[in-house]
Amino acid sequence: MANLSIHSKKHKVCVVGSGNWGTTIAKVVAENVAEHPDIFEQDIQMWVYEEEYTIPSSSKHHDPGSALSTKPQKLTQLINGLHENVKYLPDIALPKNIIANPDVASTVEGATILIFNLPHQFIGRICDNLVGKVLPYARGISCIKGVSVSDQGCELFSESIGKKLNIYCGALSGANIANEVALEKWSETTVAYEPPAMDSKQPTPEGSPHGSTANLTSLNNEKSSPKAKLAALPAEYPPLNHKNIRSLFHRPYFHVRMTTDVAGVSLGGALKNIVALAAGFVDGLGWGDNAKSAVMRIGILEEVKFGLQFFGHSCRGETFTEESCGVADIITSCSGGRNFRCAKMAVKEGKAIGEIEERELNGQKLQGTSTAYEVNAFLKVKGVEGEFPLFTAVYNILEGNNRPEDIPRLVEGHSRADLD
Amino acid sequence: MANLSIHSKKHKVCVVGSGNWGTTIAKVVAENVAEHPDIFEQDIQMWVYEEEYTIPSSSKHHDPGSALSTKPQKLTQLINGLHENVKYLPDIALPKNIIANPDVASTVEGATILIFNLPHQFIGRICDNLVGKVLPYARGISCIKGVSVSDQGCELFSESIGKKLNIYCGALSGANIANEVALEKWSETTVAYEPPAMDSKQPTPEGSPHGSTANLTSLNNEKSSPKAKLAALPAEYPPLNHKNIRSLFHRPYFHVRMTTDVAGVSLGGALKNIVALAAGFVDGLGWGDNAKSAVMRIGILEEVKFGLQFFGHSCRGETFTEESCGVADIITSCSGGRNFRCAKMAVKEGKAIGEIEERELNGQKLQGTSTAYEVNAFLKVKGVEGEFPLFTAVYNILEGNNRPEDIPRLVEGHSRADLD
Repeated sequence: MANLSIHSKKHKVCVVGSGNWGTTIAKVVAENVAEHPDIFEQDIQMWVYEEEYTIPSSSKHHDPGSALSTKPQKLTQLINGLHENVKYLPDIALPKNIIANPDVASTVEGATILIFNLPHQFIGRICDNLVGKVLPYARGISCIKGVSVSDQGCELFSESIGKKLNIYCGALSGANIANEVALEKWSETTVAYEPPAMDSKQPTPEGSPHGSTANLTSLNNEKSSPKAKLAALPAEYPPLNHKNIRSLFHRPYFHVRMTTDVAGVSLGGALKNIVALAAGFVDGLGWGDNAKSAVMRIGILEEVKFGLQFFGHSCRGETFTEESCGVADIITSCSGGRNFRCAKMAVKEGKAIGEIEERELNGQKLQGTSTAYEVNAFLKVKGVEGEFPLFTAVYNILEGNNRPEDIPRLVEGHSRADLD
Repeated sequence: MANLSIHSKKHKVCVVGSGNWGTTIAKVVAENVAEHPDIFEQDIQMWVYEEEYTIPSSSKHHDPGSALSTKPQKLTQLINGLHENVKYLPDIALPKNIIANPDVASTVEGATILIFNLPHQFIGRICDNLVGKVLPYARGISCIKGVSVSDQGCELFSESIGKKLNIYCGALSGANIANEVALEKWSETTVAYEPPAMDSKQPTPEGSPHGSTANLTSLNNEKSSPKAKLAALPAEYPPLNHKNIRSLFHRPYFHVRMTTDVAGVSLGGALKNIVALAAGFVDGLGWGDNAKSAVMRIGILEEVKFGLQFFGHSCRGETFTEESCGVADIITSCSGGRNFRCAKMAVKEGKAIGEIEERELNGQKLQGTSTAYEVNAFLKVKGVEGEFPLFTAVYNILEGNNRPEDIPRLVEGHSRADLD
C-alpha cells in the first residue's frame, strides 16, 4: 500500500474496558494499528479495573518456586508482564503494544479514538470520570451490547456516552462470541459510524459518505437536546472515514461491514436476547427446527419494527435483516447462547427461568429477562404491546400469564399482516 | 364467519403428488376445505403413483391373521381404506376427505386449484399427461422446492408447469420439514400467488392486490414467450384472492404469509442448499457459531443478489431476508438438514462429500451439490462468478480447487462492498 500520508499526526487509540470482550477487541485493534502505522500510533492503552489476582495453579504461568506466582498481584502488572489477561482472557497471547492502565483518565489522554467495551452498569461512573479529560475532537465507538430501555424511554449507550463527553460515538456489534474471536476463529461484525457534518463552513471533515446532521437524537430527547456543537477533527489527522475506521477493526478472521445506522446496530444486540428466550421456549417444547426458525424470523421483523417505529429517523430495517449485528447475531444467540439455553431448560424441566438462572449462571443474570421486562414497560407506555406479539409473549410467559405453547396463537395475527 | 356467498360454485382442490411432503400438504388442505365449505368442495383428490405395498410387520395396521395384511396391496387402496399413507407418511391419520387416485387425469378433472407436490424429475411427464385435461381457468400452486438451473438458463418449476398447462401457477415454500408439519408442530410457510390481470375488459377478477401483467417470464424466455392469454375465473366462483388462497393453506400449526414473489419463493428453496453445504463446511472445521452465522448471512445476501439480478422484474429482496421461504428456511437447513450434515461430516472426517453421501443417504443424492454445480455453470456463462463468492467457493470446494479453510478469504471482498 502506498504510504503517501500528508498528515503530520496519527490517531491514538485506546480501549476503555478489559473484560473478556474488551480484551479481545484490544487485541484486534492492536494488531491492526501495527499494520497501518501511517494512520495509527502503535501503543494501545487499555483501561483495567485494578484488582489483585492470584495466578491459579492450573495456569501455565504458575511457578510454584516463585513467591510472585503464588501471591496476589496487580492485574495490570500481570497483563503487562505476561502479555496475557490471565483473569478475563486466559491462554490468549496479546500483542505487546497493548498497555494495561489502571487509570482511566491517563488511558484516554491524547486519544482521538476511544473504544468503550465494559459492562453497561459502569458506563455512567466511568464517563463521569472522563468529563473534561478527552480531546474535544475525539470519536468514540461503543462495543457495549444493548440499550437502556425503561418506561421512561429508550436510549442507546453510544448516545449516553456521546452526550456526556460531548463527542460523537458510533457502535460495534455482531455475532461475536468473544472467545471465538480471541481464538481467531472467523466471524463478522458491524460497525456503525457517521459523525455529523461539523458546520457548514467545514464540509464533512471526516469524509463521511453521508455527512448529514447528527443522528444522535433518541426518542425522548428530541425536545431536550439542542445539540452541543461537536469539534471537527483537525486537518493534521488522517480522516476518520469508513475506510480508516474499518482498517482499525477488520482482520482476516474478523470481517467488518460498515454502516451509518448506530441505532440499528445497538438495538440488535439488545433485542436479540428476547428472541433467544422465545427460541429456547419453543425448542424446550420439542417443536423442532421449523418452529425455532419461525420464532427467529418473527423476532427479526419485530426488531425491524421497533427500530423503525422508535428510531425511524436514523434506523434502517436492513441493519436487522442483512447485517451481522442483526440476523447473524440472532442465529448465534438462538443456537447456544445462555438466554436460549436457560429458557429451553426451564421449559423442559417445568421450572421457572429464575430457578434455572440461579442454578446455571453462578450469580449472573440473564440479559434477556431484564430486556424483556424493560421493553414491555416501554411498549405499554407507548400503547403498542399488541404490535409486538413475540416480545409481548415472552414477557407474558415470564410473568406466568401465558405458556410457551401459546406462542403460535399469540403471533398468528402477525402472519395476517399482509392481508390487513 | 358470516356465510353470505353469492357464488353458485365452489373451488375443487386436488393434490398432484403423495410423497412425504405431498401427503402432508393434502392433509393441511383437506382440513381447511372442511373449515371453509362456503369456498371449497369437500373432497380432495390426491394423485398417487400406484404401486404394490406390503404393510410391514412393525405397523399398527399389520394383522398376522389376515392375508390382506401380509400380501402386497395397491397403495391407493391402502390409503383410502386406512386413511393413512402407510408407505410415505406412516402413523399420521389423514382426514377422510382425502381420496387417493391412481389416475392423474381424473385427479385434476373439474379442479380449479391444482397443488403440485412431487419430485421435480416427474413434473415434465406428469404435465404432458395433463395437457388438455385441466380447466382452462384452473390455478396452480407448486410446492416443489427448487428451480431448474443450467448453463442454458434458470427456470422456475411453477413456470414450467404454468407454460405447459397454460395456467397461472404460484408457489409455496418455507422452513417446512414435512414430518414436523404432519405432526402439527408449529411452522410457517410462504405462498406466492399473483395471477395477471386477464384482460383490460375484465379487471383483475381474482381481486389480486397487484393485478399487473404476468410475472411469469423468466430470464431466458423473455424473447420466446409472448404469453398465451390465460382464462379468467368465471364469476360463479369465489375469487381466488390472497385471502381465499391463504385460507386453503393456513392452519393454527401452519402459518401462511402471502406474497406476490413467485421467483423469490422458488429460488429460496433451491439456493439454500448451497448455503447449507457452506455452513456444514465451516462447522466441520470446528469454527463455532460465529462462523456459521456469518456463512448464513452471506448466503442470504447472495440469494437476494441472485434473485434481483436474474429475476429482477418480479423478485423482491425481502422475500429472502424476511420470509419463511428465505431466512427461516436457511436457518432450518443449516441446523440439521442433510446437506449441512453431510458437508460437516466430510470436513470432520477428511473425506469427499460424495463418499459421505453414498454412506449416509442410502442411494439418494444431495440436492446441494447438484444445485451448486448448476448455479456455477449458469454464473460462468453470465460471467459473474466473482459476484457470488460464497456460491462459487462451495463449487470450488466440491471440485477440490479450494479448501473449506479458504472461505473467509474468498468472501472477504464481500464485506468491503460498502466501501466500493
